[in-house]
Amino acid sequence: MAKAPSNAISPTRTEDYAEWYQQVIKAADLAENAPVRGCMVIKPWGYALWENIQRELDAMFKATGHKNAYFPLFIPKSFMEKEAEHVEGFAKECAVVTHYRLVHGKDGGLIPDPEARLEEPLIVRPTSETIIGAMFAKWVQSYRDLPLLINQWCNIVRWELRTRMFLRTTEFLWQEGHTAHETAADAEEETRKILDLYADFAESFMAMPVIRGKKSIAERFPGAVDTYSIEAMMQDRKALQAGTSHFLGQNFARASEIKFQGREGTEEHAWTTSWGVSTRLIGGLIMTHSDDDGLVLPPKLAPSHVVILPIVRADDTRDLVLSYVDQVAAELRARTYEGRPVIVEVDNRDTRGGQKQWEWIKKGVPVRLEIGPRDAERGTVSFARRDKAFNEKMDVPRAELPTRLLDVLAEMQSGLFERAKSFRAANMHPIGSRDEFFAFFTPKNAERPEIHGGFAVSPWCGDAKCEEEIKEALKVTIRNLPLEPLDGIDESGSGKCVVCGREKQATAVFAKSY
Amino acid sequence: MAKAPSNAISPTRTEDYAEWYQQVIKAADLAENAPVRGCMVIKPWGYALWENIQRELDAMFKATGHKNAYFPLFIPKSFMEKEAEHVEGFAKECAVVTHYRLVHGKDGGLIPDPEARLEEPLIVRPTSETIIGAMFAKWVQSYRDLPLLINQWCNIVRWELRTRMFLRTTEFLWQEGHTAHETAADAEEETRKILDLYADFAESFMAMPVIRGKKSIAERFPGAVDTYSIEAMMQDRKALQAGTSHFLGQNFARASEIKFQGREGTEEHAWTTSWGVSTRLIGGLIMTHSDDDGLVLPPKLAPSHVVILPIVRADDTRDLVLSYVDQVAAELRARTYEGRPVIVEVDNRDTRGGQKQWEWIKKGVPVRLEIGPRDAERGTVSFARRDKAFNEKMDVPRAELPTRLLDVLAEMQSGLFERAKSFRAANMHPIGSRDEFFAFFTPKNAERPEIHGGFAVSPWCGDAKCEEEIKEALKVTIRNLPLEPLDGIDESGSGKCVVCGREKQATAVFAKSY
Repeated sequence: MAKAPSNAISPTRTEDYAEWYQQVIKAADLAENAPVRGCMVIKPWGYALWENIQRELDAMFKATGHKNAYFPLFIPKSFMEKEAEHVEGFAKECAVVTHYRLVHGKDGGLIPDPEARLEEPLIVRPTSETIIGAMFAKWVQSYRDLPLLINQWCNIVRWELRTRMFLRTTEFLWQEGHTAHETAADAEEETRKILDLYADFAESFMAMPVIRGKKSIAERFPGAVDTYSIEAMMQDRKALQAGTSHFLGQNFARASEIKFQGREGTEEHAWTTSWGVSTRLIGGLIMTHSDDDGLVLPPKLAPSHVVILPIVRADDTRDLVLSYVDQVAAELRARTYEGRPVIVEVDNRDTRGGQKQWEWIKKGVPVRLEIGPRDAERGTVSFARRDKAFNEKMDVPRAELPTRLLDVLAEMQSGLFERAKSFRAANMHPIGSRDEFFAFFTPKNAERPEIHGGFAVSPWCGDAKCEEEIKEALKVTIRNLPLEPLDGIDESGSGKCVVCGREKQATAVFAKSY
Repeated sequence: MAKAPSNAISPTRTEDYAEWYQQVIKAADLAENAPVRGCMVIKPWGYALWENIQRELDAMFKATGHKNAYFPLFIPKSFMEKEAEHVEGFAKECAVVTHYRLVHGKDGGLIPDPEARLEEPLIVRPTSETIIGAMFAKWVQSYRDLPLLINQWCNIVRWELRTRMFLRTTEFLWQEGHTAHETAADAEEETRKILDLYADFAESFMAMPVIRGKKSIAERFPGAVDTYSIEAMMQDRKALQAGTSHFLGQNFARASEIKFQGREGTEEHAWTTSWGVSTRLIGGLIMTHSDDDGLVLPPKLAPSHVVILPIVRADDTRDLVLSYVDQVAAELRARTYEGRPVIVEVDNRDTRGGQKQWEWIKKGVPVRLEIGPRDAERGTVSFARRDKAFNEKMDVPRAELPTRLLDVLAEMQSGLFERAKSFRAANMHPIGSRDEFFAFFTPKNAERPEIHGGFAVSPWCGDAKCEEEIKEALKVTIRNLPLEPLDGIDESGSGKCVVCGREKQATAVFAKSY
């Protein structure tokens, strides 16, 4: 075989985590930077991942009564001005359309036509609360029209200064749920239901353990009453906010005049929620599971479950091998894994076997089957798993293959989750004292300043000043206030804010984050 | 029952076709105008139609080897300038992003921040040949990288002057295929393959008969060598261009420098194609099948196949009826129609039965089942079809219902297609003489100036001046030059251009169009 496994991605995670991430994306052919500032092109292997994420989430949304719709890309400036906090949060980083035509300028090049200036500039949606709110105001008349449960799959633009593929890009793809309810309790229940749905998706499909919790006021969505998030630990021990669910109270209903006639005949403002996950999830998937050989994919979301690599050396055995490969592929495709047919790629390209093998390792296909003339004769296949060493292969009789494959896929899915949970457990600690806290987040190794302790689960007084202090000093923020005790974390001992020593108001998860 | 059937939509098709179209959309709750100029909001029932269209087309694209990807929304101005014809075609009607931030102006309102002006304006994609071409140039190095078969589902913005929901909106949803090939013949084959795929989809799923043909030079996509289209006849006898497939030759490959090393070692430009269909298809669906009672949906694309309307009059039979309804619904949902489970809505709303029934008629659900206490006792359901009179109902025994339903859905699907074909046959005629041609397209009734003969299949000399003349005089254009003889049209008699009398170069379909 061509290369030592530790070399497939260079640099490795321990050498340079940030660069390793970019190289994994490149080696797996997931995406690349676009010739438009801060934007990316999602390539077929990466987009297939997004399609799988979409399909599963969409089914979960529909099963809970939500319906998809589509709202305009453009938001009139005046709509953004309606909710005061919201405009401060989003007006600072948006693409503004000011003209609707180009004409040839004096030098022959194109310029925005001065005759075609828009009276009111349009904003490319950074989120759609305001435009959807305007429609909800028309659709909701009576309590009988509630709840209104709408979701949209679309593109979003936020003019980010520093971008990184999948994690933060000027344009990204997402879904945004927007719902309106009769009572605060109904809206809060929806907010929490979606948080749970996101957590379930992250853990069951992405094999990515998450902490469900409420955001501190400082980290809240602009205009929300409460923001909840799911937070995951990446392999550099930083946190990734993987999804948010907002209880908007009546703020947006007031701004957009979403009013209804209540059961008692009085006019009331609706209670609304919004929630979203984006292509950022793909960044989380990469950073949770991948290794120094490249991408590792949880089988439930893998674009292909199996790749078959025919080994054809001599012309006289070529037909034998290829026809055997076709039969094996057909037998596997006839089986179902997690509700969809097993997806099999056959790589017949005229390339060296070692190179092909490594390409598929770097792409993260869960199972590789090598099939040569001897396999065809003996009725076996050589079976390798992405979660084992590259050269750990076993001969499997063809008759046993479909069952073995399904077992292995299930085992890999739960194995990846357990591995990620163990990693988090090893790097998440209850920390009660200020000294320990500072030590925890101070890099031990000057050459690798990005590596620190991980997640600190610590008491917090509730004061935003303490958040500011540690953000300034350590670049650490409160990720969320967990909704339930965290596995293996004993906090019984500590009752004082880890920053200022005052009485604790909540337990918080502190971490550096993306 | 509440209303006479002829009254469900007002005005009727014969009274005011354009307004009837808007009213059908409104009554079916498909979409409405957005508070952004020329944009629409696609509501859940309309969006579900689009999802069904997407699912079927997407499967067809994938089955023919295409892969989905995603490219940026924004196109740098300089990219648009690369292909001369292309820029003339699209620069005239595009949304231009000039700033990336809003700030508070003197009056407190938001203005584009003068400090945040983009050096190079960005264009919101009116189509993506140029940006995708730039990526293809990076991806294609050798003939081994070809063909490259990519598709994208996305939103598009073209600043249209006159808009009409689904048919022409400033923002719309579509798919755009972009492919690169080694030879002209390969690219031409792809162009034609997709045209056939579109025709197959239109006829098999939308039940909308189409004419496949080549566009005249005047109607070609800006920058293409050849444009092919599928054209359908709407019920006002106008044509709708429902999909286009372009052979781009090497024009865009030259503009974007998509070059590869050929089999002989020489550097060559690739041959490219592009092709697309959009939410416009929904407009075509509406105008092909709907009637004066509202929307009529081909079962293969209907968001729901069946609605059950429980008739609950007295409290003591309520449970009986509702539990019977649940059983019937479950039995139907266990069946499969065209590869997906039968989709059943149960309308339990506390609304009058007549009103409910008419709502579902206007939404175009193929089959309505009314179930009252007597049905529950006798083990029957009252079965009504959207393609029959509203009061034509039959009692069907529960045991026979699933089979009956599947038969009826299949019958409706083919029945709608046959009806549309008959309508087109009745309004498409071979016309050889100029006088006849002018008479054909001159409204007979001054009060209904939009109604004219329909499609004229006529000889044409190939001169764009003849096209201009009739466009000016009659607002008639060549829709396309059909690829094969049209059913029931005998053209043997006519060999001279219907406009100028010179020798015919091709047979063309002439019509007024959307």
